[in-house]
Amino acid sequence: MFITPNNEFERIDDLYFKNYKIIQDKRLFCFGTDAVLLADFASVKKNGTVVDLGCGNGIIPLLLCGKKEPQKIIGIEIQEPSAMLAERNVVLNGLSDKITILNADLKEATSLLPKGKFDHVVSNPPYKEKGSGILNPKDSLKIARHEILCELSDIIRTAADLLRFSGTFTLIHRPERLSDILCFMREYGIEAKRLRMVFPTPSLKPDMVLIEGKRGAKPKLTVEPPLILHNPDGSYTKEVMEIYGKES
Amino acid sequence: MFITPNNEFERIDDLYFKNYKIIQDKRLFCFGTDAVLLADFASVKKNGTVVDLGCGNGIIPLLLCGKKEPQKIIGIEIQEPSAMLAERNVVLNGLSDKITILNADLKEATSLLPKGKFDHVVSNPPYKEKGSGILNPKDSLKIARHEILCELSDIIRTAADLLRFSGTFTLIHRPERLSDILCFMREYGIEAKRLRMVFPTPSLKPDMVLIEGKRGAKPKLTVEPPLILHNPDGSYTKEVMEIYGKES
Repeated sequence: MFITPNNEFERIDDLYFKNYKIIQDKRLFCFGTDAVLLADFASVKKNGTVVDLGCGNGIIPLLLCGKKEPQKIIGIEIQEPSAMLAERNVVLNGLSDKITILNADLKEATSLLPKGKFDHVVSNPPYKEKGSGILNPKDSLKIARHEILCELSDIIRTAADLLRFSGTFTLIHRPERLSDILCFMREYGIEAKRLRMVFPTPSLKPDMVLIEGKRGAKPKLTVEPPLILHNPDGSYTKEVMEIYGKES
Repeated sequence: MFITPNNEFERIDDLYFKNYKIIQDKRLFCFGTDAVLLADFASVKKNGTVVDLGCGNGIIPLLLCGKKEPQKIIGIEIQEPSAMLAERNVVLNGLSDKITILNADLKEATSLLPKGKFDHVVSNPPYKEKGSGILNPKDSLKIARHEILCELSDIIRTAADLLRFSGTFTLIHRPERLSDILCFMREYGIEAKRLRMVFPTPSLKPDMVLIEGKRGAKPKLTVEPPLILHNPDGSYTKEVMEIYGKES
């Protein structure tokens, strides 16, 4: 197995903590701010067990490992090239004892993993609904961005199946899907407990929303202060810089 | 009927537009910023028909009349003293041809009003769930603030019954009830289309949320930029000052 870049499409990026690095392939989905925000927002406990539904190149397992120190993270990824890249990233950072990558369909997660046992499930899923938006001609990016191989309801149902009672499910998504997210969560027995809107600047609409629910909890949502990404000069705000640099 | 303050508990306040005034009784529920924000946020069309569920002393019908110029507003209020005060406020401002106050239980609205005919329903309902928080010993305030005589689901079901297809329902409520609001709306066939969080300052949690849905619409929510109430020195922000002063 190659654990360093092995062709002209791959590059190696520094994650700026614990000397972690990540190989990314520009033909596949490369991580963005959303993955960093999700890993920071998720209430993953030290020594907790985590499943990442749709882990792509493994960015969220890497970030969680570095920042929250869970006992074990399982990353599930349906696309073989992405799953292989994730596996190489695990090896590259010496995290094979902490992170396991499964090249599998998340809809079949409960046939591979025990039901009702995990402390945390996280997901940075495809944002676009089936049939919406312009489809990327490259299949891999299409699958990462659109609900082609799994829909929001599949992700939330799978999360509910994997979580123990009171386990947390943390998601980042587009604000336009908020009703879908909150209603599916309730339908599958996960009650939303924390929500934070992510605004590019204070005068613009939010382009992302962070949501965390607990399986079996009673309703009562805490909406947190707005998370503002950019200063008026376009630079990242102090809070975002801290999120990027933060270690556990 | 007395149309001016007629006892030591009543005072008359200026609404700062069109010379409108309002009599408030300090033994009953007096309006706050939430009523002003709701009337501004609601997409009430000129010459549209509106029902206000739980109109209290009539503040929202007065504000909508002055700012949006609907054809007709029906205010429903279960508490007789508040409904009487609302009626006096209508007369005081010469708006008897525009606003009708019904002293009735909103759960029985569809036995008094036609179903599926109104362009808009608005509500600034009791915020606190039955049995939550500290109950005010005065019954009138208790009913205005707690879900004693009606619950959130009653309000949303009634709104859905009264609205025409594509008619709007606009609500202000506490962010902690967001899942309840979005899920009940969907259950009763009103899809949330606009949402705005109201923050006391940019670094604090929001204490109110404005939501507007459309009966029979497809899902796709627009979350608007944050509405910030106060400057760092405690004064109202420019946007809030404009909302308070704005005429149609």
